[in-house]
Amino acid sequence: MTVAVYLPLEDKTQWWVDMLADLLPGWTVKALDAVTDPSDVHYAVVWRPRTGDIAKFPNLKAVVSIGAGIDHVLADEELPGDVPIIRTVGDDLTQRMREYVALHVLRHHRDMPRQLQAQAEVDWHAIVVPVAPNRTIGVMGLGNLGAAAAQTLSALGFHTRGWSKSEKQIEGVETFAGADTMDAFLDGCEILVNLLPLTDQTRGILNADLFAKLAPGACLVNCARGPHLVDEDLLAALESGQIKQATLDVFHQEPLPADNPFWTHPAITVTPHVASQIDAQTGGRIIAANLKTFEETGTCADVADAKRGY
Amino acid sequence: MTVAVYLPLEDKTQWWVDMLADLLPGWTVKALDAVTDPSDVHYAVVWRPRTGDIAKFPNLKAVVSIGAGIDHVLADEELPGDVPIIRTVGDDLTQRMREYVALHVLRHHRDMPRQLQAQAEVDWHAIVVPVAPNRTIGVMGLGNLGAAAAQTLSALGFHTRGWSKSEKQIEGVETFAGADTMDAFLDGCEILVNLLPLTDQTRGILNADLFAKLAPGACLVNCARGPHLVDEDLLAALESGQIKQATLDVFHQEPLPADNPFWTHPAITVTPHVASQIDAQTGGRIIAANLKTFEETGTCADVADAKRGY
Ligand SMILES: NC(=O)c1ccc[n+]([C@@H]2O[C@H](COP(=O)([O-])OP(=O)(O)OC[C@H]3O[C@@H](n4cnc5c(N)ncnc54)[C@H](OP(=O)(O)O)[C@@H]3O)[C@@H](O)[C@H]2O)c1
Ligand SMILES: NC(=O)c1ccc[n+]([C@@H]2O[C@H](COP(=O)([O-])OP(=O)(O)OC[C@H]3O[C@@H](n4cnc5c(N)ncnc54)[C@H](OP(=O)(O)O)[C@@H]3O)[C@@H](O)[C@H]2O)c1
Repeated sequence: MTVAVYLPLEDKTQWWVDMLADLLPGWTVKALDAVTDPSDVHYAVVWRPRTGDIAKFPNLKAVVSIGAGIDHVLADEELPGDVPIIRTVGDDLTQRMREYVALHVLRHHRDMPRQLQAQAEVDWHAIVVPVAPNRTIGVMGLGNLGAAAAQTLSALGFHTRGWSKSEKQIEGVETFAGADTMDAFLDGCEILVNLLPLTDQTRGILNADLFAKLAPGACLVNCARGPHLVDEDLLAALESGQIKQATLDVFHQEPLPADNPFWTHPAITVTPHVASQIDAQTGGRIIAANLKTFEETGTCADVADAKRGY
Repeated sequence: MTVAVYLPLEDKTQWWVDMLADLLPGWTVKALDAVTDPSDVHYAVVWRPRTGDIAKFPNLKAVVSIGAGIDHVLADEELPGDVPIIRTVGDDLTQRMREYVALHVLRHHRDMPRQLQAQAEVDWHAIVVPVAPNRTIGVMGLGNLGAAAAQTLSALGFHTRGWSKSEKQIEGVETFAGADTMDAFLDGCEILVNLLPLTDQTRGILNADLFAKLAPGACLVNCARGPHLVDEDLLAALESGQIKQATLDVFHQEPLPADNPFWTHPAITVTPHVASQIDAQTGGRIIAANLKTFEETGTCADVADAKRGY
């Protein structure tokens, strides 16, 4: 079997080629741009492929997304509609996202930005906040990552809500399902965490309308995708005070351009898409295992639903 | 029954007097400095009493510490040896400490100080750290607060150790008991959390010797008492790199004097003794309940062991 690998950075691509070659003895693994006969390629392993990258392989059995989201694959307008997309998920990814969400929700909850400002001003300024059970946190998206994040927040003591498309039962989490329940879910939320996939339904969902439905002075943690957020609406909501602080891990353009106002906004924390970077070694093992399973059985548990968009 | 109240700030004292008077109908509650006949006083409710404050009441039945620690009461050299000391503990205090410890361990774990520096430099700099199960965290002291903190860290996924005087069993936590096990407990610890009480055995325990036994580049979270730490040893360990970062909530002198180098040290986070400030309303209810129980039964569950020092 032949695997073509593409990531936006060439040296990263070569690193993945070498790793996967080690993990898939007997298979041929190449950089996508080094493929000479496209009809040879059976699998493409990609992060943010370029338009047409996938379509050029007539005998492709599946595309593997190096990550949990498949939006970056679906973004390719020439993507063949019938090729299965395998996403890369696993305990390592879930664990890292739990840590990120717990950290940033706690940071906003205890107002660490203000506390650090007091330190910078040599000001012994005690910030006393409600105790976690008196704080309502909302998690949008209850998939692998959202469900684990919501459970973690609940275990930390927060009053935790979750929102998804279909009904869920998660211990300690008040769940809401479907678009009709969105207002009830948002009402009174003091910290909102976004872990939705990026689809036509969710693009731009973090907008002025939604912000207005949260508790006044709510905080936002976006660790899903940049285009979930309407950037200008966030800036306006911070200006008006409807949103107090935001932590953003993902952006419309990544790396975030140096002139983007988010970088220097006093109420915005920028992290460089690190909420849950899959550890490359672990990711490689998961991908190799998925490829072997797919090759043997014609499918695997991590095949996404391209029609649904996630 | 007559209760005398003392806190270092006069307006705080009056606020506590009024609250306790409301909660203890039929009792007399006064500011300690407003007492005219000391032989009238049966209970003293205090935070950091002055030397001799307690000794002047010949008919005292118990002293109540407004807080979990009793070190600030024992510090009074004229304290009568035989008066029971009731500490103030409860779910609210424990919950707040869990939040504080989780927040600051996660901050060090994910190196937020460095990440925020990258943002300040408009630098898209991804910090990839080991996943929590590959991080060893040590919690010193497994009382009300330490045990809850250790359990919380374990639930977050950290490899968690705990150290106490007597043997403990805490789910998900590797426990060590007694001075003999201290080196084994410290060996390989990457983030150390101090939740010991301040006693003759624990004063100055966070010193150069201890730092040298941690993993190189370990982080420290001190949320117990300032005199646990040898300040100069921390500065030296930060200088050498043996300690990478520290978060300090408590200090030898509080408020921390403006000229203390901790304020401006780039590797130190200062918080103003807010890890777990008891919510005054909640604290008042707990204290009133303890006083009533003590008055009826001659004791209560929160009586500390003054000889042991905690
Ligand atoms: N920042 C990072 O480092 C990072 C890392 C990994 C992933 N991510 C992002 O995190 C996202 C979530 O990952 P995951 O693995 O948890 O995804 P997932 O397992 O596919 O779960 C998606 C969840 O969103 C819900 N959902 C989808 N569309 C919805 C809609 N229109 N209304 C309400 N709920 C909707 C789904 O509901 P149902 O369960 O009812 O279908 C599901 O609960 C990824 O798509 C990716 O964008 C970010
Ligand atoms: N920063 C803040 O906002 C804040 C708020 C509240 C409290 N505190 C501090 O937190 C401290 C802990 O509170 P707590 O309620 O958890 O105390 P606690 O219930 O009295 O527990 C003390 C723990 O320390 C252990 N210990 C005592 N001396 C030791 C020694 N020499 N070696 C090893 N272990 C020893 C005890 O072991 P055994 O169980 O075997 O006796 C016990 O597990 C308080 O004393 C106070 O200083 C700080």
